[in-house]
Amino acid sequence: MEFTAKAIAEFLNGQVVGNPEVKVNNVAKIEEAKDGTLAFLANPKYSKYLYSTEASIVLINKDFELENPVSATLIKVENAYESFAKLLELAEQAKPVKQGISSLAFIEESAKIGDGVYIAPFVYIGENAVIEDNAKLFPHVFIDDDVTVKKNTTLNSGVKVYHECIIGENCIIHSGAVIGSDGFGFAPDENNVYRKIPQLGNVVIEDNVEVGSNTTIDRATMGSTFIKKGVKLDNLIQIGHNVQIEENTVMAAQVGIAGSTKVGKNCQFGGQSAAAPHIIIADGVKVTPQAGIPNTIKEPGSIVMGTPAFNIREFQRSFVVYKQLPDLYKRVKELENELKKLKGE
Amino acid sequence: MEFTAKAIAEFLNGQVVGNPEVKVNNVAKIEEAKDGTLAFLANPKYSKYLYSTEASIVLINKDFELENPVSATLIKVENAYESFAKLLELAEQAKPVKQGISSLAFIEESAKIGDGVYIAPFVYIGENAVIEDNAKLFPHVFIDDDVTVKKNTTLNSGVKVYHECIIGENCIIHSGAVIGSDGFGFAPDENNVYRKIPQLGNVVIEDNVEVGSNTTIDRATMGSTFIKKGVKLDNLIQIGHNVQIEENTVMAAQVGIAGSTKVGKNCQFGGQSAAAPHIIIADGVKVTPQAGIPNTIKEPGSIVMGTPAFNIREFQRSFVVYKQLPDLYKRVKELENELKKLKGE
Amino acid sequence: MEFTAKAIAEFLNGQVVGNPEVKVNNVAKIEEAKDGTLAFLANPKYSKYLYSTEASIVLINKDFELENPVSATLIKVENAYESFAKLLELAEQAKPVKQGISSLAFIEESAKIGDGVYIAPFVYIGENAVIEDNAKLFPHVFIDDDVTVKKNTTLNSGVKVYHECIIGENCIIHSGAVIGSDGFGFAPDENNVYRKIPQLGNVVIEDNVEVGSNTTIDRATMGSTFIKKGVKLDNLIQIGHNVQIEENTVMAAQVGIAGSTKVGKNCQFGGQSAAAPHIIIADGVKVTPQAGIPNTIKEPGSIVMGTPAFNIREFQRSFVVYKQLPDLYKRVKELENELKKLKGE
Repeated sequence: MEFTAKAIAEFLNGQVVGNPEVKVNNVAKIEEAKDGTLAFLANPKYSKYLYSTEASIVLINKDFELENPVSATLIKVENAYESFAKLLELAEQAKPVKQGISSLAFIEESAKIGDGVYIAPFVYIGENAVIEDNAKLFPHVFIDDDVTVKKNTTLNSGVKVYHECIIGENCIIHSGAVIGSDGFGFAPDENNVYRKIPQLGNVVIEDNVEVGSNTTIDRATMGSTFIKKGVKLDNLIQIGHNVQIEENTVMAAQVGIAGSTKVGKNCQFGGQSAAAPHIIIADGVKVTPQAGIPNTIKEPGSIVMGTPAFNIREFQRSFVVYKQLPDLYKRVKELENELKKLKGE
Repeated sequence: MEFTAKAIAEFLNGQVVGNPEVKVNNVAKIEEAKDGTLAFLANPKYSKYLYSTEASIVLINKDFELENPVSATLIKVENAYESFAKLLELAEQAKPVKQGISSLAFIEESAKIGDGVYIAPFVYIGENAVIEDNAKLFPHVFIDDDVTVKKNTTLNSGVKVYHECIIGENCIIHSGAVIGSDGFGFAPDENNVYRKIPQLGNVVIEDNVEVGSNTTIDRATMGSTFIKKGVKLDNLIQIGHNVQIEENTVMAAQVGIAGSTKVGKNCQFGGQSAAAPHIIIADGVKVTPQAGIPNTIKEPGSIVMGTPAFNIREFQRSFVVYKQLPDLYKRVKELENELKKLKGE
Repeated sequence: MEFTAKAIAEFLNGQVVGNPEVKVNNVAKIEEAKDGTLAFLANPKYSKYLYSTEASIVLINKDFELENPVSATLIKVENAYESFAKLLELAEQAKPVKQGISSLAFIEESAKIGDGVYIAPFVYIGENAVIEDNAKLFPHVFIDDDVTVKKNTTLNSGVKVYHECIIGENCIIHSGAVIGSDGFGFAPDENNVYRKIPQLGNVVIEDNVEVGSNTTIDRATMGSTFIKKGVKLDNLIQIGHNVQIEENTVMAAQVGIAGSTKVGKNCQFGGQSAAAPHIIIADGVKVTPQAGIPNTIKEPGSIVMGTPAFNIREFQRSFVVYKQLPDLYKRVKELENELKKLKGE
């Protein structure tokens, strides 16, 4: 499909500068764009590309001031990044939607299946499972007994959901994610042989959550492991049993949250960071990549770094000296020598 | 099902304090418990909840001394935590057991299938594979040629076992775990192009092992990668080729053990910790989360921290000073200035 | 099958020292080898085993000088390790090859399937997918719409490939790897609720790439995430959206590369190391295990260590002092005391 700059500007409430009849049929990054594509400029670091881009249309912030002539047609909008995202969503929505229940799926008779669902070949749905309207289950999804998958939720190929877990509305779970496997609970006997503690709870994922590929979320020993509304988890993340993650917290790939820890809302975890078990992390805490949080963080909005993690500014100040430690060591040695001399030794 | 305090006390060899006829039908954490549930108190940190809990029954250690009146019926036992675990196991065992061989499974004719097994829809079992009595294979399990799965072992949905691997009795392998994929073995040629070293060995998992979701255990180049009796591996762990892990060692999520390393028995690895290739780690070693072990550890029972990891006490002493480095730096500078003054410079 | 030392020496262009008629039917490590097996000696650390090994044949470098008598027959070759690898490849190639299209696979009519392919039970192949000659798709592989899998490539059991991704020739993708799941792209609104940025690009994997088990490679937001020729990725690795990894770079298990980062050719990443988003890493850079790269590295061949990572030699010099920090602290305190005394305070 092709769209004119004029049509796009109308959709975005933007203003055309240049030829309103120029057409595009795809999107691209401003530095890679070709004729016939639409790009955007939001980050000032990329401003230089505006003057050389081959994009036919560029979305820019309305307060952006041109320093040179531009060959592309511009559409001035309130927020170029958000406008671009809206166009991408439009393109996404224009894609054909999978629907229907494959005869190659296995569905227990006691399962309840809503309207408008997609249940692909090789999907398994256990007893008393509930699949609500417009849910999409791609090939090789496993839905164990008594699981609920709510409206409009997509489980990509190979997602595994253990018994009794609940997944909210409008969620997207990516391939290979495992929801509700047993928590890591073992009690050592007097010979250091470990006996398994049965894991009888479940996982509750609320609405609008996205879970990345091959991420694992363990069921609670008792009660529930909670992933609250709007949480976004990247790939290969580990969420231990009885963890609770509050609304709109985001975690980058390979993060690990140990058992029974509570993470506040609007937190941001960098890649490969981790939190110890049985601690509480306040709202709005930011954790730098690879940091490891050993203890409860009470101060909302704290930013922490290092293993064990502490305040980022203090970490950075210490780190500056760390890099100079050989020099510092030498200076201390010299001071000792000087002092000896002074003392006439 | 409902049970009276009296019946539970008899099962646990405990002593009832309070109403022996009170009934429960579920378990709960002491701080979240409602009427009709049973909770336990083992950790002194939770003692305060004993006096406010709504649980109908609480298991406590027999030497626990009450400081206030309690409304719940108490059952005094030798070890409240273990007794609670026993009850959980009982509840677990009361669950209906899956059995039978689905007509939607694919099983090569040369495979040998024992009695009492569960083979779910969409399971694949290759040539000459052996599935012993009472093994349970959930949907989308892949058993390659010449694999052996021993008695009473459960492979959860989506477990993949490559050719010739052996999994012992009473094991639990969680969803998405991959057993026996190729070790990471490549030899660079003179142009830095890597040629694959064929990985001709296998993986041998002994009895009573639990492997977490999406954990990967690579086959040996030659010989076997060994996971010995009673080892417990959490989710998203990487075990490299030719690794050997001795009895009853436990590893938290996201640990990585590089190729050919030998880990002793009764070790404990914290989350995201790692060990270098071709090293030996003594029995009973404890590794803190995110630590990275660069070299062989000969001293049994060592506790190590940091990357590269060393003795935990030494690490902690250094870390205390690390946090004060900016101040230490300043003090050295002052010393230098003072000394200059003293010397009349 | 059995082979004589003479036959093997001829195949490898080597020279027999000992009985040319001795036969072997398997390979083994020199320290574990039994009668009837062939081992090799390349690493001088293992030289001592040459004099005690039970192997019937040992490959050694032709310049190796014996210090004691040896009972095994030796085959002297240019490079014992490479020669051994060649023999392993030969053994690998001798294995029976899977072929044919299972009637239990689901294949959309619009898909194009080449000659000599293996398509196992429970494989799903979507619309307009292209599976080229001799490709092997093991059970539970998911090929979404418009995916291309080129010649001679093997997708092991449970590999998931999202729509429009392209996988080159002679690749091996291990079980549970996910290719082309959505990049982690979200824009927070004024209430800190995250809106998903549609991920419209794809993943392009070039020829001769190996991808480990449960590794995840995200699709680009726009354009492509690129894994170039000859790259080798181990298990449980995360490759973010729009990442580009140049030829013949190798990464050990659990590495994480954040979005839009470009990694040069011939780089080596140790296990659990990571790189920040939007940075550039020069050719031939070596990253130690667990290191975290915060910024662009311009110098080809740099070796970096630590989090945040910097030059390995500088890191190690600082680390030596780090371990002595408590002592250094004490010495500074003593200096202060001495100085006070000197000043007559």
